[in-house]
Amino acid sequence: MSDPLRLGIAGLGTVGVGVLKILRDQAELIEARAGRPLVATAVCARSRDKDRGVDISDLAWEDDPVALAQREDVDVFVELMGGSDGPAKAATEAAIAAGKDVVTANKAMLAVNGQALAEAAETAGHVIRFEAAVAGGIPVVKALTEGLSANRMERVMGVMNGTCNYILTRMQSAGLPYEAVFEEADRLGYLEADPELDVGGIDAGHKLSLLSSIAFGTKVDFEAVELEGIGEVTIEDIQQAADMGYRIKLLGVAQMTGRGLEQRMQPCLVPATSPLGQLEGGMNMVVLEGDAVGQIVMRGAGAGEGPTASAVMADVIDIARGIRVSTFGQPAAGLRAARPASSAVPAPYYLRMALLDRPGALAKVAQALGDNGISIDRMRQYGHTDETAPVLIVTHRTMRSALESALSDMAGTGVVSGKPVVLRIEEV
Amino acid sequence: MSDPLRLGIAGLGTVGVGVLKILRDQAELIEARAGRPLVATAVCARSRDKDRGVDISDLAWEDDPVALAQREDVDVFVELMGGSDGPAKAATEAAIAAGKDVVTANKAMLAVNGQALAEAAETAGHVIRFEAAVAGGIPVVKALTEGLSANRMERVMGVMNGTCNYILTRMQSAGLPYEAVFEEADRLGYLEADPELDVGGIDAGHKLSLLSSIAFGTKVDFEAVELEGIGEVTIEDIQQAADMGYRIKLLGVAQMTGRGLEQRMQPCLVPATSPLGQLEGGMNMVVLEGDAVGQIVMRGAGAGEGPTASAVMADVIDIARGIRVSTFGQPAAGLRAARPASSAVPAPYYLRMALLDRPGALAKVAQALGDNGISIDRMRQYGHTDETAPVLIVTHRTMRSALESALSDMAGTGVVSGKPVVLRIEEV
Repeated sequence: MSDPLRLGIAGLGTVGVGVLKILRDQAELIEARAGRPLVATAVCARSRDKDRGVDISDLAWEDDPVALAQREDVDVFVELMGGSDGPAKAATEAAIAAGKDVVTANKAMLAVNGQALAEAAETAGHVIRFEAAVAGGIPVVKALTEGLSANRMERVMGVMNGTCNYILTRMQSAGLPYEAVFEEADRLGYLEADPELDVGGIDAGHKLSLLSSIAFGTKVDFEAVELEGIGEVTIEDIQQAADMGYRIKLLGVAQMTGRGLEQRMQPCLVPATSPLGQLEGGMNMVVLEGDAVGQIVMRGAGAGEGPTASAVMADVIDIARGIRVSTFGQPAAGLRAARPASSAVPAPYYLRMALLDRPGALAKVAQALGDNGISIDRMRQYGHTDETAPVLIVTHRTMRSALESALSDMAGTGVVSGKPVVLRIEEV
Repeated sequence: MSDPLRLGIAGLGTVGVGVLKILRDQAELIEARAGRPLVATAVCARSRDKDRGVDISDLAWEDDPVALAQREDVDVFVELMGGSDGPAKAATEAAIAAGKDVVTANKAMLAVNGQALAEAAETAGHVIRFEAAVAGGIPVVKALTEGLSANRMERVMGVMNGTCNYILTRMQSAGLPYEAVFEEADRLGYLEADPELDVGGIDAGHKLSLLSSIAFGTKVDFEAVELEGIGEVTIEDIQQAADMGYRIKLLGVAQMTGRGLEQRMQPCLVPATSPLGQLEGGMNMVVLEGDAVGQIVMRGAGAGEGPTASAVMADVIDIARGIRVSTFGQPAAGLRAARPASSAVPAPYYLRMALLDRPGALAKVAQALGDNGISIDRMRQYGHTDETAPVLIVTHRTMRSALESALSDMAGTGVVSGKPVVLRIEEV
């Protein structure tokens, strides 16, 4: 039997503890699959004495993750601290410089520094793996990088923040407004310390930018992701969308278009009967579309001790098995810088607006759409409240630019009160 | 740049042609990902001159797949002929003996001869890969073998024959009997030359036995798969099941129980709202349940030129990248022989029977269930037709043995006409 593969684990939160438990509980099974034993030799975390429900007394302790990453008795540096820069990045760089492979669950670090880190690792002949950074337990990084490697990818989509999906489905099922469900999620401990990472779409946007890079052979470009959170989604829109056969999801979409790489993370309508539409609660789902394979859908838990540790350990076992694939599926130095494209693909849109009670108001709105070449799929006007009447419109496919022009024309008519709600309908 | 990886392709049906097209159309993309060029050097098929829509004039031709497998200019033998024994097996053995790696889409060959072939390949230091053999384009072999390698697997399920799923969903949507939809599927070319491979569950059973081996570290044991086809599924049962919130699927289930390894491929009821219940038409779905990751669901096309070629090529690219994993996830020589267990896990059941028009008939049926410790979840009796009344029963969880005993007791009461329909309800 070969020598053990020795892990140094930085960060003993939920995921780190999950990794230690798997190493302890499944040692025999993993050794059979990996072809060699896997052992943790050293750890570091904020507090040494905290009771984590797992014994770390036989592991070497380091206060400094950089020191951990440089230890002689560590072959693989497992980075579970989080944070785009700071200690996580410093320790990862130290690990690469010290000749270690790296496994990380840190989407923020890779979204911001992934290109440089991958180049450094590949120059040094080492690997950075990050299955746990995207969609938790779903082995989607592997599916995209290896399982679909013969495909020219056409589109990658995903619901990749379980907290947002929980909030949106709970709003619908309980008929509650955003604020109430947000508070509920906070009480349940579902939110990050900085909730904007979740509800602002940042966390999910990080993940999307990593999948984009693999799918399209481009440098990670998180800055180019159009980010829109769920804070503006109203219970009215959720209910109106449901009435018309849709669900509202915080959906990430990346696709290569003739104008460049489009990356969006925003609330979208999807058909209620589609797999994405049917995704309820805290689950994650990723949809991968390739020219040969068609559409592959993967569903599972996007967070939590077991699922995330499962993904971390799969990367570690890959390394033990000698599997060495470039971080983003091809050498980082050869990744292209994508030209960012904004809404370059036509789509149907959902519009909700308050129409002033004036003769011909509806006709003026319809005229503004028609003048911009936008045809209407469905329109509903409801009874008046105060001086305005709610109007819902589902358009046929149109370019976002044409829609913006129509919205500007509508504003000029003086019959629309306030700013219309505009949500893209993603065809899935 | 490294030397090209040279492929010898045996079998130029739909899948073989798809592989040649990908090699031609995506050469640049694949070279970037694989780190070296991939080229077909030689092929063999039944007819050399058939028009396949792809030019093979620059490829060496062999009439004999064994000769192809032994060619000096072939590094990877790609077996796309099919058949559990005969030329496919002979050529695969020849390839291994000649020091080649093997990629195959042949579920029958591996289900019957996989253990011996994997042992031979591993002894020789070569790999056999078979992503395309299970669920077409869905990268489920990779997900299970690598992506979930840190999990003790608890259950593996799947709808893995698109033809059967097409027939069952079409029966429901069109309200047509089995025979009519079977003929329709035949006209559309959806059926294998021997349709029993599809509708008898054999093809899907082959696939299940391969997933079982990976999931549970056991020798492939197709003979132990309890096989039941869809030929007995009636439109009545489909409609009654739908009324009670279920769908009937040809579902493969493998799970390790206290009594041994249970492998079943049979029509089952699943909740209509579950991912499996929502799977329509010719799609495939695999559900993987592990102790750490929870439930992972994968959905995609289970057959067809593009999806299957995508899976074949992913295996080839893995080999080009130097990824070498044991055929069944751990060395074949170390796989255990599983003790087969038959329905060792309790489940709810759906029963449909024709009750004779006699006083106390329903009570006697209920009594037979109660006497065997089986409680009733739901029961419906419908209006009489002729001398019998249809009765539907959904039981709570029970062992199959208790149910058989109850059915035997019922037969003894003389109030049941004919043989009751018994379908397992799989909790998903």
